[in-house]
Amino acid sequence: MNNNIGKEFIEKTKYKYLGETDQDKELPQPPLEVEYDKDTILILLPSVENIKVKDIDLRQAIESRKSLRKYADKPLTMEELSYLLWCTQGVKRISSIPATIRNVPSAGARHSFETYLLINKVDGIKPGLYRYLAIEHKLMEVNIEPDMAEKVTNSCGNQIFIKNSAVTFIWSTAIYRMKWRYGERGYRYIHLDAGHVCQNLYLASQSIDSGVCAIAAFDDDEINRLLGLDGEEQFVVYLATVGKKNIL
Amino acid sequence: MNNNIGKEFIEKTKYKYLGETDQDKELPQPPLEVEYDKDTILILLPSVENIKVKDIDLRQAIESRKSLRKYADKPLTMEELSYLLWCTQGVKRISSIPATIRNVPSAGARHSFETYLLINKVDGIKPGLYRYLAIEHKLMEVNIEPDMAEKVTNSCGNQIFIKNSAVTFIWSTAIYRMKWRYGERGYRYIHLDAGHVCQNLYLASQSIDSGVCAIAAFDDDEINRLLGLDGEEQFVVYLATVGKKNIL
Repeated sequence: MNNNIGKEFIEKTKYKYLGETDQDKELPQPPLEVEYDKDTILILLPSVENIKVKDIDLRQAIESRKSLRKYADKPLTMEELSYLLWCTQGVKRISSIPATIRNVPSAGARHSFETYLLINKVDGIKPGLYRYLAIEHKLMEVNIEPDMAEKVTNSCGNQIFIKNSAVTFIWSTAIYRMKWRYGERGYRYIHLDAGHVCQNLYLASQSIDSGVCAIAAFDDDEINRLLGLDGEEQFVVYLATVGKKNIL
Repeated sequence: MNNNIGKEFIEKTKYKYLGETDQDKELPQPPLEVEYDKDTILILLPSVENIKVKDIDLRQAIESRKSLRKYADKPLTMEELSYLLWCTQGVKRISSIPATIRNVPSAGARHSFETYLLINKVDGIKPGLYRYLAIEHKLMEVNIEPDMAEKVTNSCGNQIFIKNSAVTFIWSTAIYRMKWRYGERGYRYIHLDAGHVCQNLYLASQSIDSGVCAIAAFDDDEINRLLGLDGEEQFVVYLATVGKKNIL
């Protein structure tokens, strides 16, 4: 079985093949965040202004980054989790367009991601699947059945460091937020954007004595099903595990 | 004119559609770097160990990052350019596989990029198009005809901050380095990888009083032609401008 879909994708997302976008047609832009049940009880995250993390020099962080797949059996604090969410998707303000202005860049400030978390070991939070509400800087419970870590691990070819991680970040895209402006070329941009986000996670984890491993090898259908995503309007783009370093 | 190529790309790069990769078939892996004429005179870049840049706290770098499109009319030094190349694609070592181990992560350490530079204002380097040889940490002249800045700017929808930048990074992929291992799914990964690289450029630029603006809107055929790339085996994935900040 083989195909040339990659080459075709690059070809057909050239401008000459792109028609008018929905923005060009003056259709209304989608909401900045996928809607959620406003009656759900949300978990407050510690306010970032008050979180102290270790100072680390940028150059040192860049030069010492390496993927870490073996973690100490230690939890993250809620402050540490809050900090990582802030660095990767935190909303600094909402502009007049409106668009979210975040700590990471995104093509046209479209910021199409909804971050999900597989929480295994974070003080004060029950293990399970959660969604990060970036604008609210809060967590929403998605599924806390006891086998979620096992299922997410299986959906990623049984890479066991997922279930051994303290938390695994799962970045899904609400693709229309990007397509509204960029059409089919937006499928390139969601991947570029996910790279920005993941690199910040790699670097920020070093301020909290943790390490990261990015994961792009996953069974799309299986992980989307676990998260309750339809796989077309919203689907997983990238994941990364986080856990405390073993101190020798 | 419209198509569904994005959705089809996501679908057809699921594992169920991927056949055996060339790595599975035990075909030899491609070289770690696209070949070049060994008689070419190369430009030495200052050795990174000796480069001093301003210490900047990682968190501050992350929180203060914003895209910058207006630059001061000041050159970068060769040390500063060397530092940015190091942070974005610098090779720390070559592993026994062999694979390059760099300051940025890449899926399976495939590191498929060849970095090109449009140099407008760097002390000691004639304006023009160059290629960065990451393993050698040297520059190779590609084209120093006087209208290169104009042509690259035009190929990106005339975004004039390109010709006003001190230097514009142009990341091309030698796609087979990625496809050899991952098949068609590798076309996702080159974009994820480009995001990692670009985020490091955004952050590292802050150590040298500079700012960055990423560019994903370009005429693929035009920019590939300018760089002498065939658009299939090697093609541009992402760009980013760099220039000194205006100090008020």
